[in-house]
Amino acid sequence: MAIKAVIIGASGYTGAELVRLLYGHKEVEITSLVADSNAGKPISEIYPHFAKLDLPDMVKLADADLTNADVAFCCLPHATSQEIIASLPESLRIIDLSADFRIKDADVYEKWYGTKHTQDALREMAVYGLSEINREQIKSARLVACPGCYPTSVLLPMLPLLESGKIPPDGRIIADSKSGITGAGRTAKTANLFAEVDENVKPYGIGGHRHVAEIEQEMSSATSSEIVITFTPQVVPMNRGILSCIYVDLNDGVDSAGLKEVLVEQYKDEHFIDIPAGDHVPTTREVMNTNNAQVNVFADRVEGKAIIISAIDNLVKGASGQAVQNMNIMFDLDETEGLSAIATFP
Amino acid sequence: MAIKAVIIGASGYTGAELVRLLYGHKEVEITSLVADSNAGKPISEIYPHFAKLDLPDMVKLADADLTNADVAFCCLPHATSQEIIASLPESLRIIDLSADFRIKDADVYEKWYGTKHTQDALREMAVYGLSEINREQIKSARLVACPGCYPTSVLLPMLPLLESGKIPPDGRIIADSKSGITGAGRTAKTANLFAEVDENVKPYGIGGHRHVAEIEQEMSSATSSEIVITFTPQVVPMNRGILSCIYVDLNDGVDSAGLKEVLVEQYKDEHFIDIPAGDHVPTTREVMNTNNAQVNVFADRVEGKAIIISAIDNLVKGASGQAVQNMNIMFDLDETEGLSAIATFP
Amino acid sequence: MAIKAVIIGASGYTGAELVRLLYGHKEVEITSLVADSNAGKPISEIYPHFAKLDLPDMVKLADADLTNADVAFCCLPHATSQEIIASLPESLRIIDLSADFRIKDADVYEKWYGTKHTQDALREMAVYGLSEINREQIKSARLVACPGCYPTSVLLPMLPLLESGKIPPDGRIIADSKSGITGAGRTAKTANLFAEVDENVKPYGIGGHRHVAEIEQEMSSATSSEIVITFTPQVVPMNRGILSCIYVDLNDGVDSAGLKEVLVEQYKDEHFIDIPAGDHVPTTREVMNTNNAQVNVFADRVEGKAIIISAIDNLVKGASGQAVQNMNIMFDLDETEGLSAIATFP
Amino acid sequence: MAIKAVIIGASGYTGAELVRLLYGHKEVEITSLVADSNAGKPISEIYPHFAKLDLPDMVKLADADLTNADVAFCCLPHATSQEIIASLPESLRIIDLSADFRIKDADVYEKWYGTKHTQDALREMAVYGLSEINREQIKSARLVACPGCYPTSVLLPMLPLLESGKIPPDGRIIADSKSGITGAGRTAKTANLFAEVDENVKPYGIGGHRHVAEIEQEMSSATSSEIVITFTPQVVPMNRGILSCIYVDLNDGVDSAGLKEVLVEQYKDEHFIDIPAGDHVPTTREVMNTNNAQVNVFADRVEGKAIIISAIDNLVKGASGQAVQNMNIMFDLDETEGLSAIATFP
Repeated sequence: MAIKAVIIGASGYTGAELVRLLYGHKEVEITSLVADSNAGKPISEIYPHFAKLDLPDMVKLADADLTNADVAFCCLPHATSQEIIASLPESLRIIDLSADFRIKDADVYEKWYGTKHTQDALREMAVYGLSEINREQIKSARLVACPGCYPTSVLLPMLPLLESGKIPPDGRIIADSKSGITGAGRTAKTANLFAEVDENVKPYGIGGHRHVAEIEQEMSSATSSEIVITFTPQVVPMNRGILSCIYVDLNDGVDSAGLKEVLVEQYKDEHFIDIPAGDHVPTTREVMNTNNAQVNVFADRVEGKAIIISAIDNLVKGASGQAVQNMNIMFDLDETEGLSAIATFP
Repeated sequence: MAIKAVIIGASGYTGAELVRLLYGHKEVEITSLVADSNAGKPISEIYPHFAKLDLPDMVKLADADLTNADVAFCCLPHATSQEIIASLPESLRIIDLSADFRIKDADVYEKWYGTKHTQDALREMAVYGLSEINREQIKSARLVACPGCYPTSVLLPMLPLLESGKIPPDGRIIADSKSGITGAGRTAKTANLFAEVDENVKPYGIGGHRHVAEIEQEMSSATSSEIVITFTPQVVPMNRGILSCIYVDLNDGVDSAGLKEVLVEQYKDEHFIDIPAGDHVPTTREVMNTNNAQVNVFADRVEGKAIIISAIDNLVKGASGQAVQNMNIMFDLDETEGLSAIATFP
Repeated sequence: MAIKAVIIGASGYTGAELVRLLYGHKEVEITSLVADSNAGKPISEIYPHFAKLDLPDMVKLADADLTNADVAFCCLPHATSQEIIASLPESLRIIDLSADFRIKDADVYEKWYGTKHTQDALREMAVYGLSEINREQIKSARLVACPGCYPTSVLLPMLPLLESGKIPPDGRIIADSKSGITGAGRTAKTANLFAEVDENVKPYGIGGHRHVAEIEQEMSSATSSEIVITFTPQVVPMNRGILSCIYVDLNDGVDSAGLKEVLVEQYKDEHFIDIPAGDHVPTTREVMNTNNAQVNVFADRVEGKAIIISAIDNLVKGASGQAVQNMNIMFDLDETEGLSAIATFP
Repeated sequence: MAIKAVIIGASGYTGAELVRLLYGHKEVEITSLVADSNAGKPISEIYPHFAKLDLPDMVKLADADLTNADVAFCCLPHATSQEIIASLPESLRIIDLSADFRIKDADVYEKWYGTKHTQDALREMAVYGLSEINREQIKSARLVACPGCYPTSVLLPMLPLLESGKIPPDGRIIADSKSGITGAGRTAKTANLFAEVDENVKPYGIGGHRHVAEIEQEMSSATSSEIVITFTPQVVPMNRGILSCIYVDLNDGVDSAGLKEVLVEQYKDEHFIDIPAGDHVPTTREVMNTNNAQVNVFADRVEGKAIIISAIDNLVKGASGQAVQNMNIMFDLDETEGLSAIATFP
């Protein structure tokens, strides 16, 4: 019997990507599409490429049949998320794509998100949904907080490396990340217009991007130390993809090959994590439209340092794909079900 | 002594393009930048690439010194334009980039623009500012209505051809036009987001795009007949440029070479009109960031037909460049002053 | 038992797209990848995104085990194709993506392709693989000649319309088609460089593009008349997609709604053909990475005329996807197997 | 009387950009365009947008009138450059855009460029043409070696900062640079095709890009120490522009504001160097098609560190524009002549 899934916040890009992935998932039935401001319309009115799919019309949250559903994917803005999620029936398992349940410390949340966190119990029970790292806790979680897109690209390589003890937790860690514009969502803002994004590289949020909070939290937790990183997100003129160049220090006697061994060992049985042999350089095109992460380690010209490069599709592994992967884990399904697409190239 | 120019509606793309062109114009001083909703700010707040230019802050129209100005460029939406222009001092010569004074017949205007035209006297005195065609009237005009971007690309080749009698006015005329997204302006709309425009070809306004009104008006007027055309505008994923493929019938005994002769003869002394020799195909890149139009004529496989291809930069020859060219004509300056840029390629 | 498939010419874009589609096809096993100049290498050396797939290394044709294969997909240049295909074992069923077996008349082939056709018997037995139109003949064909990308976009709407008698075969038919650059293949030519294609619209092959031959052949055959069309292909700055605007005449008493009825009726049971309700305008994004064609009909402003707009992904429905669809038909499989992807958007 | 300029290697992108810039330069006449493989053709055959300019046909070097010329711009590949330049008449002043005379140490040159340097005398006399830094030596130089595009973006901010003593020469220096594809030149390679570059971020030459050699040479020379940097170049899907994020250590008691003061002071009278007030983030769009560099300094989240971001147009300030600026310096002209373009946006 199919898992009944509800998508709350179906009208944004991550909502649409969930529709695409879940519709192709053998064990799932999409039973409600919640989008308050578009309630009453078929989703094909805002995403016409869904016109021939057999999907329910969008509804207000109040009108969605949640009691018969098994899982809710929540694609709402932060602050809104926590309130809505608190209102959902206890029987529902929840996969949240917002930032609201990623941050364990309410003060840290408030500092970065500018709003109080009011759902302590939920926040405490939430599991940070970095699938390959927290698989065991995800299995039984009621509420999974899916990582941000940038954090996914940074933490997948960095957590095992930090845990391995080959990288000093008090060393310098710099993540220089380039993202396609879909990370900004479907909001109609001047900065996101084609004529502004095209032919441009645009750093933003220097020293202050909110994803720093969860990156540092997870790194610090993994090493029982207080890690502070440098993070520079940048928009480049493309739709999808994040490529992070991560510059790290090495402990004495460690070289880049040693780091690579850690990653190869850590991820050797993982379907979605690709550590290419040799010096193959990750690129976003090779993971486009897939749930894969490509990671490699490079020697730095400077002694005692290394460079890690990781690439993901921000809308799949960085959002909706990892959410589906988490659902597969939670419901004891084949983890790759619905996520086996090969990259589209060219 | 410099011509004092005012730009009304300076915050849109055509306003910004006027700033760029007029700032580099030897005979012009920009004395006011009018942008009501941004009044009080330097223009570099919305266009930071202007930060090092010596430009006045933006002001409300009411605060602009119009009586000491010589010319006003008006980059406002239709309907608003006619009211504002009616309120300007009589001493000002006006170059309007909106549609408000392009259409001679108030009923036709109302039909296509959905609003009444209330400025009969101004509308009647306005000259349709297709520079190469109406140069004589432009010289002495008080009010010049600059053509739309699509109409510029279509009329430059078509008016001489229709007037030559080599094309039957009651024959089939189809303009299939592809445009960069800047033609849609700087309005923050979902449809104009990078993530929507990229990797897409999107026809729109099929059978109903407003530019049909002025194209048909000018064609009909040139031939003293009532011409109806087919026009299909399309957005392609680029910033600037319009390429129009125009499919026409030929009168008996006429071939594509005959059409080309008409254009070569008509435009032989024109700096901005390029009729390349042989079968060179116009492309938008060759006119990018210039006031040039490139036009060529091709034999059709079908007997008695021909294909005309024209390329312009929609923001320059299709808008602000032609506006400056018209100013040069009105003020008896070298017509190429401020407009001699070579295309930027690549 | 799986169908054993060989891809001959695996190193080009259509070859790679076949790998992607066939690898995800439940009933197919890719047994050989033939690419003479890359023989001995894994395909991941030229397409690294295939690195984690279980695929045979590329081999020379002479080294491929063809006798145990069921079907060969042939992605070679024209002229080469006919020779290679003539050399294949009779037991193999062949799906050719080149132009070599599309044209029935050897003289017409020679005129357009500049080389003699030497395989009369094969050419005569070949079925033109426009799946929805020639399904019955494809079922039992030994050799299927897959249509060109532009012809697919034009013929899918035009053949039923011409056959319906609502469009005069001696009327004007103009196809103005815009394509992504992947249609040009993976050949390293200056014209295909990013820096040349970006920010440009570039018509080419005006009056002389080879796809005219098959378009006119199929249209003429469908109407038992000699049809001559106008066809203007254009490259726009994107990877995938073809959008064709087709301008047609109507017979007396027919209007655009009448044309649409023909298409709705013709394609009502077709999975891959989408005739949207109302005035929804086809765009390439809505069919991206799918085997779908989207077609709609629009009233023309000119009496007695209509506009048909069709959109496909040139690498899927316009090439490798239709090839797989034809294989499904030939081997009596579910026609949608391996081809059920939803468009990726954004 | 005009300066007579020869462009050797006119058929590449930097050659074409020199044509564009020099043609608009009031004091220069282009007397020869040298392009051996295209000799005898007008340059409009390879760059049709130059068709209406009054330019000499391309010639072989042997056929160029060099004795009557004043200056030669040399846009040849490395290794070739040194030989050709050695053969030029002594009367010619030379502005070389290749790497051949940038590296002072012949062994270092050979190590990075894989070929011997055979022109010791020329190499020793050559001035590294970073205009704002080496203006005095450039004035009287016979041979100016224009910096690479990446080095220009890195050295403009870094040399004054290192010289100021606020950054430790033995600290960590990481330059993470993103470039448009025109930096790869007009060579027809698969990797540079639109279909490969589009929708991708692609790091390359990690730890081994040749521009490291000149960056380290100039930094080391400025500080009389041996500096080793980390440099990660990346191609993003756009034509023009380089954005470098530079991560640096600070000496005790120094903060990012202190660094900024150094740059503001250093460049306060420089026309082409823009240090925006406040936290304005440099972007490539703001310098597109100009000779400007935009640089700003940002506080790092990590104590004792700072981030410098610089943006240039790789074909202008990073190549042909800086070459023209150097010519202006060498011939005692207004340094901005021919280079005063405002950025084209959008």
